[in-house]
Amino acid sequence: MSIEKYIRDIQDFPKPGIVFKDITPLLAEPEASKMCLELLLNGLPDVKIDKVVGVESRGFFFATLLAYKLNAGFVPVRKPKKLPFTTISATYDLEYGQDTLEIHTDAIQKGDKVLIHDDVLATGGTAKAVCELVEKLGGEIVQCNFLMELTFLNGREKIRQYDIFSPLKY
Amino acid sequence: MSIEKYIRDIQDFPKPGIVFKDITPLLAEPEASKMCLELLLNGLPDVKIDKVVGVESRGFFFATLLAYKLNAGFVPVRKPKKLPFTTISATYDLEYGQDTLEIHTDAIQKGDKVLIHDDVLATGGTAKAVCELVEKLGGEIVQCNFLMELTFLNGREKIRQYDIFSPLKY
Repeated sequence: MSIEKYIRDIQDFPKPGIVFKDITPLLAEPEASKMCLELLLNGLPDVKIDKVVGVESRGFFFATLLAYKLNAGFVPVRKPKKLPFTTISATYDLEYGQDTLEIHTDAIQKGDKVLIHDDVLATGGTAKAVCELVEKLGGEIVQCNFLMELTFLNGREKIRQYDIFSPLKY
Repeated sequence: MSIEKYIRDIQDFPKPGIVFKDITPLLAEPEASKMCLELLLNGLPDVKIDKVVGVESRGFFFATLLAYKLNAGFVPVRKPKKLPFTTISATYDLEYGQDTLEIHTDAIQKGDKVLIHDDVLATGGTAKAVCELVEKLGGEIVQCNFLMELTFLNGREKIRQYDIFSPLKY
């Protein structure tokens, strides 16, 4: 099965000049989704993971599944003012603009082994901010994984101190 | 195991006078999350489900897991301008304000058996809008399920023509 055929290029989204990789056809196809999940699981180091951090919103899709399969807790990292309890935040540059992310202060316990998941590794700005949040709370990052990686944006550079895995590369 | 103890009341969120039910402690606890998933699965009618529709963003958490367990496709319903392909939209009143939701036009095929999931049934405005979107695309709604229901807001009334299930009631 070719997973790539379930990922659709959308020209000029969300801004002119950007080719957006739309994973909704993949999510709609259970066998393709399951294959992606297996690929992500197979790329993990052999460490017991305590928490899977998913990045709002598209990172939630596979992060919840990874947490389920790993018998780990799921932790959402969200846009400002979405999380109701006490938070810490990180602001960062992204492919098109600037953004801020928040995490609950009680989401990670000191020493937790943490897997960070997002759908796409682009410039790496988002991932770097999430790593900072997790480490501020005392979490140990086991891996940053992504469904796909836009290699021409060289996002790996920004998070090169971590284990990075993505089954699909563009 | 008491699931309720993993749901935290947050006073005055997102607006004064609202008591918000925070499910992040539950998501962080794998056994509690798995029990919720089982409760949701046990409440389903005995019908082969083709698509599970999750409502942005908190509806995504259990909707992806339900889709996985049911071997069904996952379909996100999202806030405006988040979905990159052709969409239809529905605007509705909610507990605090007004909102619009979108779905991809190719997300549901005519005759698809559809499960709609969100974390909370409050006034029912969101759920009603999602039902409209699904039916506009020719989907047949098998059930609307929710992790919890704020019974005092009487949201069931707005979607009373559908099968409704929620394991937790407040």
